[in-house]
Amino acid sequence: MTNLNSTSLINVAFQGEPGAYSEAALVDYFGKKAAAVGKPRFEDVFEAVEDGSCQLGFIPIENSLAGSIHRNYDLLREHSLHIIGETTLRVRHCLIAAPGASMDKITKVISHPQALDQCRGFLNRWEGGIKVEQVYDTAGAVKQLAETRNQTTAAIASRRAAELYGMSILMEGIEDDEANFTRFLVLSTEEVDPGKDAKTSILVCLKNLPGSLFKALSVFALRDIDLTKLESRPLIGQPGEYQFYVDFAGSIKDQKVIRALNHLEEYATLLRVLGSYPRNSF
Amino acid sequence: MTNLNSTSLINVAFQGEPGAYSEAALVDYFGKKAAAVGKPRFEDVFEAVEDGSCQLGFIPIENSLAGSIHRNYDLLREHSLHIIGETTLRVRHCLIAAPGASMDKITKVISHPQALDQCRGFLNRWEGGIKVEQVYDTAGAVKQLAETRNQTTAAIASRRAAELYGMSILMEGIEDDEANFTRFLVLSTEEVDPGKDAKTSILVCLKNLPGSLFKALSVFALRDIDLTKLESRPLIGQPGEYQFYVDFAGSIKDQKVIRALNHLEEYATLLRVLGSYPRNSF
Repeated sequence: MTNLNSTSLINVAFQGEPGAYSEAALVDYFGKKAAAVGKPRFEDVFEAVEDGSCQLGFIPIENSLAGSIHRNYDLLREHSLHIIGETTLRVRHCLIAAPGASMDKITKVISHPQALDQCRGFLNRWEGGIKVEQVYDTAGAVKQLAETRNQTTAAIASRRAAELYGMSILMEGIEDDEANFTRFLVLSTEEVDPGKDAKTSILVCLKNLPGSLFKALSVFALRDIDLTKLESRPLIGQPGEYQFYVDFAGSIKDQKVIRALNHLEEYATLLRVLGSYPRNSF
Repeated sequence: MTNLNSTSLINVAFQGEPGAYSEAALVDYFGKKAAAVGKPRFEDVFEAVEDGSCQLGFIPIENSLAGSIHRNYDLLREHSLHIIGETTLRVRHCLIAAPGASMDKITKVISHPQALDQCRGFLNRWEGGIKVEQVYDTAGAVKQLAETRNQTTAAIASRRAAELYGMSILMEGIEDDEANFTRFLVLSTEEVDPGKDAKTSILVCLKNLPGSLFKALSVFALRDIDLTKLESRPLIGQPGEYQFYVDFAGSIKDQKVIRALNHLEEYATLLRVLGSYPRNSF
């Protein structure tokens, strides 16, 4: 079992480049205990944990503005890793420029289209107007600034990206909507003891009959188990079945949770426990 | 009320550029009755319908791989437009090149990162390997080909984009996963008669108490009303409340639906009917 208290660094795989928001969340969560290992695709994160080249994986699972990341639910279903932790990052955009640059000289702002869109109010208030240019990723925008040292261009990215590339932060928290959070999961080949304040994530398939979801939810309601997430996902090409993501308060070791899941198996065509882990409120 | 049988063209606002998948879905749905009007942002689509410059709006609401588009649920909540129709587009990627180009001469493929990712299997199987380059949007990749007439570069985009820019389709259906569907909604300032095979979409907020969702769902289960979508969305900063998106079979004019919604109001802190419209199975 991965020992998080060990003094040696643990390798944690994430999808993205250094300075990406995923990496920032990973560093926040593990502190100095982890070495972040960037991978091109989410699949590569799962495979790195399975083949042992990384001890843990770290993936985004939902964003408060953009929704659940179905791709990662599919990978959780296809692979047999366990969720052993969760954390939530508030996405906080910074206006970043090369050292020596100042706000009044900036004529252009570059970033990923989603980040630009999330800072539209800020950009619209810019005295005299500002040119905006879309690039592929936020960390890449900062890397570009670091290479050119251009004094009239700023990037929108994470504080971490600015620090990594030695750039200056002109402003922090320029996003219009403060309720921009991304929830991340920690993945391992082995389960952990989730402790007393635990959360459990499951994936359930039900026959598409009137009332089938109601029956399925009764197994939790009848035992006063609190749901923290419930989402149906259309299964294309399988009109007779529905897939649900359910998170609930409680550990897989609790008697009432064990009973609820046994009861749920009476209705479900598929039931997968994705993990039981210490709760970290979203 | 918008008369879809009128002989004059109706202006329908969508977010994106000509050749975007949204535009392709719009043209599929309305045929020759509509003129597609591209807008830079989703907000602009809502505003164009409200100020009357477009009769209808056309927005994506969920994708089978990427999930619900919360931004558009927020806009549905903030604005008072009605959903009057739905349609589902299977996202089918084409390999597109300038006229005269042939597969054996292509050395590079350009597209939006998501489209490239969805065709990774196809690209990996390319004899001798292929260079891949990311651009901001799929239709823009085709526009670029049309401008340069480069014979060694291909783009991944919709059939519609190829046709618009007079480019050739070298291959169609190159996506790895055939279950890539996007559901779109048609928006109007006025309601329609949803007919007999109807669907209704609502937005509900509930107090975050154990069993509150179970009670809320009982109003449908007790009346044999079939749910087609159920999704909880975390409301950041309001830990005491939950927001749900619910779609169910039935018209807002059905007596049992009216009774169910009256019953639901006993539990809900907010209940908004987003629309009742002819059903088009996902």
